[in-house]
Amino acid sequence: MNGAESLVRTLLASGIDTCFANPGTSEMHFVAALDQVPGMKCVLGLQENVVTGMADGYFRIARKPACTLLHCGPGLANGMGNLHNARRARSGIVNIVGDQATFHRPFDAPLTADTAGMAQTVSQWVRTSVQSEHLGRDAAEAIAAAQVFPGQIATLILPADVSWNDGGVVGAPLAVPAAPEVDGNAIENAARTLRSYGPDTLILVGGPAALSEAQGLLWRVAQATGATLMADFVTAQVARGRGRLPLERTPYVMEAALKALERFKHIILVNAKAPVGFFGYPGMPSTQYAPDTQIQVLSRPDQDPVKALRSLVLALNAPEAEIPDPGPRPEVATGSPTPEGLAQTVAALMPDNAIVSDESVSFGRGFYKFTHAAPANDWLHLAGGAIGDGLPVATGAAIGAQKQRRVISLQADGSAMYSLQSLWTQAREQLPCTTIILNNSKYNILIGEYKNVGATPGETAMSMLELGNPSLNWVGLANAMGVEAARASTLEQCGDLMKSSFGKQTPFLIELMV
Amino acid sequence: MNGAESLVRTLLASGIDTCFANPGTSEMHFVAALDQVPGMKCVLGLQENVVTGMADGYFRIARKPACTLLHCGPGLANGMGNLHNARRARSGIVNIVGDQATFHRPFDAPLTADTAGMAQTVSQWVRTSVQSEHLGRDAAEAIAAAQVFPGQIATLILPADVSWNDGGVVGAPLAVPAAPEVDGNAIENAARTLRSYGPDTLILVGGPAALSEAQGLLWRVAQATGATLMADFVTAQVARGRGRLPLERTPYVMEAALKALERFKHIILVNAKAPVGFFGYPGMPSTQYAPDTQIQVLSRPDQDPVKALRSLVLALNAPEAEIPDPGPRPEVATGSPTPEGLAQTVAALMPDNAIVSDESVSFGRGFYKFTHAAPANDWLHLAGGAIGDGLPVATGAAIGAQKQRRVISLQADGSAMYSLQSLWTQAREQLPCTTIILNNSKYNILIGEYKNVGATPGETAMSMLELGNPSLNWVGLANAMGVEAARASTLEQCGDLMKSSFGKQTPFLIELMV
Repeated sequence: MNGAESLVRTLLASGIDTCFANPGTSEMHFVAALDQVPGMKCVLGLQENVVTGMADGYFRIARKPACTLLHCGPGLANGMGNLHNARRARSGIVNIVGDQATFHRPFDAPLTADTAGMAQTVSQWVRTSVQSEHLGRDAAEAIAAAQVFPGQIATLILPADVSWNDGGVVGAPLAVPAAPEVDGNAIENAARTLRSYGPDTLILVGGPAALSEAQGLLWRVAQATGATLMADFVTAQVARGRGRLPLERTPYVMEAALKALERFKHIILVNAKAPVGFFGYPGMPSTQYAPDTQIQVLSRPDQDPVKALRSLVLALNAPEAEIPDPGPRPEVATGSPTPEGLAQTVAALMPDNAIVSDESVSFGRGFYKFTHAAPANDWLHLAGGAIGDGLPVATGAAIGAQKQRRVISLQADGSAMYSLQSLWTQAREQLPCTTIILNNSKYNILIGEYKNVGATPGETAMSMLELGNPSLNWVGLANAMGVEAARASTLEQCGDLMKSSFGKQTPFLIELMV
Repeated sequence: MNGAESLVRTLLASGIDTCFANPGTSEMHFVAALDQVPGMKCVLGLQENVVTGMADGYFRIARKPACTLLHCGPGLANGMGNLHNARRARSGIVNIVGDQATFHRPFDAPLTADTAGMAQTVSQWVRTSVQSEHLGRDAAEAIAAAQVFPGQIATLILPADVSWNDGGVVGAPLAVPAAPEVDGNAIENAARTLRSYGPDTLILVGGPAALSEAQGLLWRVAQATGATLMADFVTAQVARGRGRLPLERTPYVMEAALKALERFKHIILVNAKAPVGFFGYPGMPSTQYAPDTQIQVLSRPDQDPVKALRSLVLALNAPEAEIPDPGPRPEVATGSPTPEGLAQTVAALMPDNAIVSDESVSFGRGFYKFTHAAPANDWLHLAGGAIGDGLPVATGAAIGAQKQRRVISLQADGSAMYSLQSLWTQAREQLPCTTIILNNSKYNILIGEYKNVGATPGETAMSMLELGNPSLNWVGLANAMGVEAARASTLEQCGDLMKSSFGKQTPFLIELMV
C-alpha cells in the first residue's frame, strides 16, 4: 500500500468522507488512491478559496470536518482567505496540501514555496509528513486536531514521494481530547453576578452557545435574572426562527455598538470574546463596552457552553422557561427592495430548517429584526471579515446537509465577485441553493467608511469603490456557469422567484437590484 | 500632513504613478490621500489575485514597479498566488497592505492576522511601518527594494493609525543599489569553455537575458562558437518574432527535457537557473541535464546579463552577426483548432509590437515553433507555476503599455477561471486586450499527469479533472463583465474575430472550442 492509499483509508476510517478539491500534479497519486478506494465524495472547486470556503460551510452544518485537497504552497495561498474565516469561525478542516517530493524540494522548482510558513498563518496544527510509513499516523493526528472542540484548522503537507512510496500504514482513529471543563468558580462567579446585577448584565454568546441547545438554557438564565442576551457580531452560526431566541447581534458600527453596550455594568462571556471594534478609528476606543464594565468568562471558546450553562442553571435554580412565540410570520413585502422588506420576504417564504448564508455586508445589518418569526433555520455569518465566503460557505453547507435543506445566500455583489466560481460547483452538484445577489454596484460599506474620514469620495476614490462601470450582469454570470437565474427589481418579483426556486432541487440565482 | 499623504507623495516622487487596488476600511485614509494628491492612476481589481497579477504584468512591460493596495492579511493572502508568480518572474512590486491600527491589533479583531508572516512567504522585503513620521522613509526603502535588479517584491504593512496620524514626511527617492558586477573570471571561464567545447555547450538564458538587447549579443556568441541557445521554460518574458532569436524553451515534460539536454557537456547559465523538473517523479532525476554535464554561471539572476554578454563577446572576439530572417510570415490556418494552426494564425495576424500573455498550459507547448516569424513581440509566461496569472498579467501589461500595444491572451480555460474577474477590469479600463480562451473543458495537463501514474482516471478522479459538467460559457462570462465576446469552432472563425478585435481599442474575448 502506498502512502496515498494509507491516507485515503485513514481519512475514511475516521469518518472523513468528503473532500473539497482542486488538485495538481503533485497530488496525482492521492487522486489515484481516491479512485481505487471507494467511499470519498470529491467536490471540485474552480479556485481554492471556493474549496476552503466549502469545507467551512460543510463543517458548520455537518458538524464534522471534511478534507480539502490543495496544490502546493500557492494553491494553499489561494485558499487562505477563507481558511482565515474558517479559523475565526472555529470550523474543523483537514487540509491536505500536496507539495514537491522531498528529494525535489532543494532544487527550488517554480512551484516550491514556504508551504509550512503559509499554513502556519491560518492553521492551529501544521505538519509536513516526511515518510510514507508515518503518513497514516500523521493524518490521524491531523483529523483529531481538526476536531478539537469546537473545531480547528489542521494542515497536513504531503510531499509527492510520501504519497507514492510504498510502506503506507492506515492510521487508527485517535481519541479527540475532551473540551477543558468549566471550573466551578466560573459558574459560581457568574451566578453571583447575575443574582446581584441581573438587569445590568449582558450575557454575550458566541460559537456553539448561539446554537439551539444552549439557547434553551440561556433563556432560563435570562428569565430568572433579568439579564440581556446578545450574540457576538461575528458568531459563525446562529440558530434562529421559531422556537429559538430572538437574539440580536452586537452592532457592527462602532458608535451603535458603544450605545448598545454602554448600559451594561457586567458582561458574561459564553464562548464569545469581549466585544471589540472590527477596526480601530481615530479618537475611538478599541473596546465596545463602557470603561467600568466588568468582564467575566463563563466559558472560553474552546469549552462546552452547554455544560457550562447547565451548571449555571442549576446554580441559579432557574426554572423551566419556554422560549416565547415570536409572533406572526411576516408576509411577503412589495415594492422597491429595502433591507426590511427583503428580510420580511425571506422570513415569509423560507422553508422549514433552511440554512441562510449571510454575506449581505452593509445591506443586511438589519435583517435579524425582521426574521425572528421565520421558521427554524441556521443563519451563517462571515466570522473572519475576509469577504468572499458567502457563496462557498453556502455551497459547502448544502453538501454538509446532504442536499436535504434549502440554502439561501443573502449575498452582496462586491463580495460575491470574490468567489463567484462557487456557482459552477452548485450547478455541478445540483445543490438546492438559492442565491440572492444584492446588486448595488458599489462597495457600499467602504463609501460609508470613507465618509467617516470626513470627506466625500472624489473621482480617484470612486474608481476604487464603485462597481457600476461596467455593470456586472449576475444573471449572465450565473447562466454562464450553469445556474438558472433571473433579475428582480421589486420585492414581489423577488418573492415569486424565491417561491419558484424553493420548489426545485437545483440552484437558482436572483439578481435583486437594490 | 498625515502619514497617508506622505506615502502618496513619496510614491509619486519615486515615479510610482500606478496603483492596483482593492481597498478596505483600514485603507480609507490612504484612499482619501489618493483623492487629494493628484497623479496616481488607480485601477480596481475585483479580487486581490487580479490586483497582484496586474502589478506583475505592468512591471514586465513598463519596467518599473507599480504599487498595490491590499486590505489586511486576508486581502494579501488572496493575492499571494500571483505574488508567488511575480517573485519567480523577478518583477518589482510595492505592496501596500493596510492593517489594523497599532493600538487595535492586540484586541485580535476578526480581520487581524499574521500579515507579516504571510508577506514573508512571497516578498524579498517586508516592513511594518509603526510611526507616521517614518512612513515616507519606509516607503522610499520599499520602492528601492522593489527596484533591486531585476525586480523584487517589497511589502509595506501600513497600520491604519500610521496612515491617519499627522507628522508625515515625504521620503526622498533612494538610490537603487547597482546589480553586482560579473567577475572577470566568470567571463574568462565561459569564454574558455565556449572556445574549447562550443558545439557541445548550451547557453541557457533567463530573466532579462531573454530580452532583445541581450539576444543580439547571444547570437554573436553562438555564431562564433557553435553553442546552442535556449531559454529556461519559466522565463517570464521572451522577446520574440522578427528581428529576435528563434529561441526555444527547455521542454516542460521531463522525458522531453532530458532528451533535449542530454547531448550538452556544458551548460552556461545567463540569468537562468540550472534546469530542473517542474515536479519530481518516481524513478526520475530532479535535474534535466546529463549526469556529466558541467554547469557554469556567466551571470546570476540578479546580475546584468547585457554587461556580462558584452564582456563575453569581447573575450571571444565574436564578430558582428545579424539575427537571421525567420522566413515568411505564416498564414491564417483553417479547419479545426490545433495548437500549430492557432499559433500560425496568431503569428499571421498579430500587430507589430504586440504582447502575448501565454497561459495556454498544455495546449500551447508547441506555440513557439510556429510563431518565430511573427512580427516583433513580447511573449509573457507563467514563471511561478501557480495558475491564474494569464488574464491579470495581460490586463496589467496593457496598462503598463499605456494602452498603446495590443495584448493577446492565449489562455487555458481551467486557469482562466482562477482570475476571470480580470475581464471586468479590462472593460472598465477599456484595454486593447484580446483573450483567446482555449476551451477544452478539462484540466488536460492533469489528465496527462494522472496517466503517468500508470492508470486511466476513474469516476472519482474525473470528478476533479474535467470541467464539462456543466460547460462553462465563456462568451456569457465575458459579456456579463462588460467584455464583447464570440465563440469560434474553426481557425478561420478565430482568425476573423482576431482581425476584428485588433481593429478596436476595446477588450474582446474569443472562446475557441478546442
